[in-house]
Amino acid sequence: MFFASDNGSGAAPEILAALTRANEGYARSYGADPIMGRVKTLVRQLFDAPEAEVYLVATGTAANALSIALLTPPWAAVFAHADAHAAVDECGAPEFFSAGAKMIPVAGDHGKMTPATLTAALSRVGEAGVHGVQRGMLSLTNVTEAGTVYTPAEIAALTAVAKARGLPCHLDGARFANALVATGASPAEMTWRAGIDILSLGGTKNGCFGVEAVVMFDPAKAWELELRRKRAGHLFSKHRYLSAQMEAYLTDGLWLRLASQANAMGARLVQGLAQVPGATLRHPAPANMLFPLWPKGTNERALARGAIYYPMPAPEGQESGRLVASWSTTGADVDAVLAALTP
Amino acid sequence: MFFASDNGSGAAPEILAALTRANEGYARSYGADPIMGRVKTLVRQLFDAPEAEVYLVATGTAANALSIALLTPPWAAVFAHADAHAAVDECGAPEFFSAGAKMIPVAGDHGKMTPATLTAALSRVGEAGVHGVQRGMLSLTNVTEAGTVYTPAEIAALTAVAKARGLPCHLDGARFANALVATGASPAEMTWRAGIDILSLGGTKNGCFGVEAVVMFDPAKAWELELRRKRAGHLFSKHRYLSAQMEAYLTDGLWLRLASQANAMGARLVQGLAQVPGATLRHPAPANMLFPLWPKGTNERALARGAIYYPMPAPEGQESGRLVASWSTTGADVDAVLAALTP
Amino acid sequence: MFFASDNGSGAAPEILAALTRANEGYARSYGADPIMGRVKTLVRQLFDAPEAEVYLVATGTAANALSIALLTPPWAAVFAHADAHAAVDECGAPEFFSAGAKMIPVAGDHGKMTPATLTAALSRVGEAGVHGVQRGMLSLTNVTEAGTVYTPAEIAALTAVAKARGLPCHLDGARFANALVATGASPAEMTWRAGIDILSLGGTKNGCFGVEAVVMFDPAKAWELELRRKRAGHLFSKHRYLSAQMEAYLTDGLWLRLASQANAMGARLVQGLAQVPGATLRHPAPANMLFPLWPKGTNERALARGAIYYPMPAPEGQESGRLVASWSTTGADVDAVLAALTP
Amino acid sequence: MFFASDNGSGAAPEILAALTRANEGYARSYGADPIMGRVKTLVRQLFDAPEAEVYLVATGTAANALSIALLTPPWAAVFAHADAHAAVDECGAPEFFSAGAKMIPVAGDHGKMTPATLTAALSRVGEAGVHGVQRGMLSLTNVTEAGTVYTPAEIAALTAVAKARGLPCHLDGARFANALVATGASPAEMTWRAGIDILSLGGTKNGCFGVEAVVMFDPAKAWELELRRKRAGHLFSKHRYLSAQMEAYLTDGLWLRLASQANAMGARLVQGLAQVPGATLRHPAPANMLFPLWPKGTNERALARGAIYYPMPAPEGQESGRLVASWSTTGADVDAVLAALTP
Repeated sequence: MFFASDNGSGAAPEILAALTRANEGYARSYGADPIMGRVKTLVRQLFDAPEAEVYLVATGTAANALSIALLTPPWAAVFAHADAHAAVDECGAPEFFSAGAKMIPVAGDHGKMTPATLTAALSRVGEAGVHGVQRGMLSLTNVTEAGTVYTPAEIAALTAVAKARGLPCHLDGARFANALVATGASPAEMTWRAGIDILSLGGTKNGCFGVEAVVMFDPAKAWELELRRKRAGHLFSKHRYLSAQMEAYLTDGLWLRLASQANAMGARLVQGLAQVPGATLRHPAPANMLFPLWPKGTNERALARGAIYYPMPAPEGQESGRLVASWSTTGADVDAVLAALTP
Repeated sequence: MFFASDNGSGAAPEILAALTRANEGYARSYGADPIMGRVKTLVRQLFDAPEAEVYLVATGTAANALSIALLTPPWAAVFAHADAHAAVDECGAPEFFSAGAKMIPVAGDHGKMTPATLTAALSRVGEAGVHGVQRGMLSLTNVTEAGTVYTPAEIAALTAVAKARGLPCHLDGARFANALVATGASPAEMTWRAGIDILSLGGTKNGCFGVEAVVMFDPAKAWELELRRKRAGHLFSKHRYLSAQMEAYLTDGLWLRLASQANAMGARLVQGLAQVPGATLRHPAPANMLFPLWPKGTNERALARGAIYYPMPAPEGQESGRLVASWSTTGADVDAVLAALTP
Repeated sequence: MFFASDNGSGAAPEILAALTRANEGYARSYGADPIMGRVKTLVRQLFDAPEAEVYLVATGTAANALSIALLTPPWAAVFAHADAHAAVDECGAPEFFSAGAKMIPVAGDHGKMTPATLTAALSRVGEAGVHGVQRGMLSLTNVTEAGTVYTPAEIAALTAVAKARGLPCHLDGARFANALVATGASPAEMTWRAGIDILSLGGTKNGCFGVEAVVMFDPAKAWELELRRKRAGHLFSKHRYLSAQMEAYLTDGLWLRLASQANAMGARLVQGLAQVPGATLRHPAPANMLFPLWPKGTNERALARGAIYYPMPAPEGQESGRLVASWSTTGADVDAVLAALTP
Repeated sequence: MFFASDNGSGAAPEILAALTRANEGYARSYGADPIMGRVKTLVRQLFDAPEAEVYLVATGTAANALSIALLTPPWAAVFAHADAHAAVDECGAPEFFSAGAKMIPVAGDHGKMTPATLTAALSRVGEAGVHGVQRGMLSLTNVTEAGTVYTPAEIAALTAVAKARGLPCHLDGARFANALVATGASPAEMTWRAGIDILSLGGTKNGCFGVEAVVMFDPAKAWELELRRKRAGHLFSKHRYLSAQMEAYLTDGLWLRLASQANAMGARLVQGLAQVPGATLRHPAPANMLFPLWPKGTNERALARGAIYYPMPAPEGQESGRLVASWSTTGADVDAVLAALTP
């Protein structure tokens, strides 16, 4: 009954096996391992992007903050949803990596900005000449912090607003595979074909030990990214262990299989919650993360029964929670938590 | 015949086994895993430092740069040996993490500063009132970049110079276990009893996948370190994998056994090189890293025969190399490289 | 008819005379001039703060950004009104000087936050443990960007909210003298007696060439401020010219006389606008800055007649402007602009 | 007998007169004053550089640090003489403005690097791939910190070394007019024709109150410089006072006349010292700054007699001082200090 976060799950057996295999013998360090070459090829194939450059780091915060710092100067604004992880959950990492860029919150229901809310935010910043910060970039998140997803068309509509002002676009894909599965989109459709310039491609939450890829569809700043990664202490000496995770993750569709299981368990939760008296969803939940509302007393009961998830702030008279399914969540887990939630 | 670096070796079987065990089931993320509690206890016991605080990161650059940023304000100087890793091999990570502190090179033969050279450097910086940067801190490295070691007494003599000016002291222990083995010192003798305030305790080079501990003997700034770690993207969500490595590493003396093997192979190399015509050592080599000089042609011959190590700049008419043994180096490896080096 | 900004006015004759006097002979540089000693004494007397430390810079942005950087670590939030100069008009200077602190907008009508809006902002930030930025400090502005003023009691109520959470408090007093005149408060009442720890005391807008004082009521961080000022290029070599301006400004009540004239002209504008058909004020205007609303066509007419001020965004069907009176504004100026505005 | 520094002198009468004239009436702020347009025209004419962009700040540290930050990324090295002001006398301002670039000291007698010493420094940094900082830029100083001067040919030889590696070149001209007078070079010969991309053109030390121009011979990064200037608090609201100083300074050769007087007094000092028993010069002194050596007891005697200058560290058995003449130094001043120095 562990639904606190998908980062509470372990690594998938295939990932562990790959790590074990990669542990044989000696390897050149700092990214010169042969596995990394194969990772690059895999990413290019999967994204239909033969020019893309790929760098591995071990945390999502590193992937996001490096990507953001690469795309914005210090005196500019990063337009991101008000609830974006980079904006509120990384202790100022974008500000640190970018030497002081400014996160500008963009409004939007269910964790999603719209062309209208983005346009409104853009019109409030960058009009003051030298006195205010400049417009720097757009950062989207898919799956969003609310558990909702953007379709490729929605992403394209947002990047079009940004690109009309010359702004580059980043996608925080900590749960990118879950978003692909939820929308049926291809990696290319969800990224560069929709105007994304750089992607944080998450592995950690979806069955890896700890690996994220920064995928640059325009390789022009690749060397700068390498320098920023090293300078930030994110270049691994025994890099083969990052490579091995990512290779296994992207091989034979493992990443999509793992995400499919997580999303399927999310759907099962949605279905089951429909039977829990008084339970509703604050946001649509097409992927693996749900934010239910339920009657007072529910959290105490469920947690006492062994359910593990985060209670969340709720409107007066109700309670709320955040439940996240992962690649390792089973139907039995879902059924157990539903039982725990039911009076 | 892989002697390019100890970070080219794999993870020890005990470390892999620990990682595999830690992969069972769910765990709280971001350092709240139960293994981390045991790591802290282990470190406190091993260092005879019941107040020490311990944080894990995955790279030595992160451990060093976070430690340095914790101890120095941006407008101050970090006194480190001219060849220190933090000074020359981290792409300016200390400057980045500290928001612009200044690395001041301290001279010294064989990679070691002396009280005299440190005093000389201290007298050149920090005397200009508000116009120059202030004196900030001392950063030592043991094993040094030259493969030599400081004894606890030597460290104490250097920290005494620093502390007389109120400066805190950091020890880069990327090869800390090798230094312990080489000197016979205890962890406490090599650190806080010798005036060290904060230690980068390396695991990666000595048989781990990628884990380093920041050990703070004075816990006063522990919370600041946590915030800096998060902000720099170095707080792992699936933190149990860092914990598991470090727990296994420090349990039952594994770290010292691994370092003993590396150092023994270093000693075997020293002995063997004495038989290679024309070969000498640029620096004493009491641990696992050697910088030999040898006649012209040696590198071409040895590399052609399959030896793997880094050729180094050498005085006119000679050649040089850097050979590093690791926990996984065997006597056969050593004998093979010696044969490859011999005309 | 120049009402674009009080920084479009010149320096008062007394300030020019002081500068001219200070130009005689030689003087020690970098703040060691004897005039600076007298400035410090003056500030301490006027603020009834014998321990206060005082540093001079030439721009308000420097005074604010240095003050903010002094009070907040990089991983924390600066709570300031959504329209605060430091938040929107300094091109990210607080972020630059603080190495990436985060400006958190606090809501409030007429440019003023309230204990309720501040509490709301405080409750949104700093609750996420290590994942979010911490609460850092409060920054108030008086006269506000909307031309309104806080009374000492209002400031005290806000700093009480901040101090209950251990947060230090800064006051941006670019128009501090105007606020004193508008409220009748003493310098001490408006600052340290109301919980302010550090003040940006403006001279530039109110009759100086370019000088602002950073007044630290708690001198504990004085040396750090000196270092930050130097490092930011804001320590003047020929410092006597800053000292001379500030000495004359604070001598014999000149600062209050100049502000009284500006405020009186503001009041005359308020009175006159009441006679302009269709004109209203968006905010109360107790000091020297007004934000009127008026019928469409007014701006075109007035500007064509030679009035100089900034048109502002206005609600549908109306127009708006910003008019600022200064120490050098005359009654004839006011009457002329009123005539220009009148159909 | 004031020879402590040229920044201890006042402002020249022409500069004070210009400031007084500029104080009439109202002016647009933040650099939109009409005088600034004339300054730009003047600089372009004097430097024979019709494309040059010009920005004014009030301190040399600001001019240098902004220029350096403009030319180098944070992960790169700034090659400057070991004694350069930016390297040792600005409390880390280049590191602050550049977000952590590394100052690499270049050796050279008499405050001057040579193509050989620059090449040696360049060969030590930037060869470590991603592990070390990259080569960023060259920063020269003329007049040097030792009081010596580079000829245009010497500058060209140094910039050629830098440009062969693609590095841009900055000239710290805090005493630029003194260097022009000392060498007879034209402004263009000393700068862009010799490979300089950006110049800190000093006014403060040579008869202004406080104004320095950043002259960009390649205007491509002009907007970035504007943003950096604002963000650093160095954009003056009452900018006309900077403009007025610089206009007067550059009009009718005032800057060169002032520097000629300073240099002439420097020459008179040189001549006079030749008559002081035991006095020698540590460095050639072609401009306005001298570093004499003299017998023990000289400093005590001269200072007791009212001479004002900085004693300097000296070789065993000797004493030293730094004497700087300025535009306001008179022959009588020189004769008096020589008398004070003479036993």
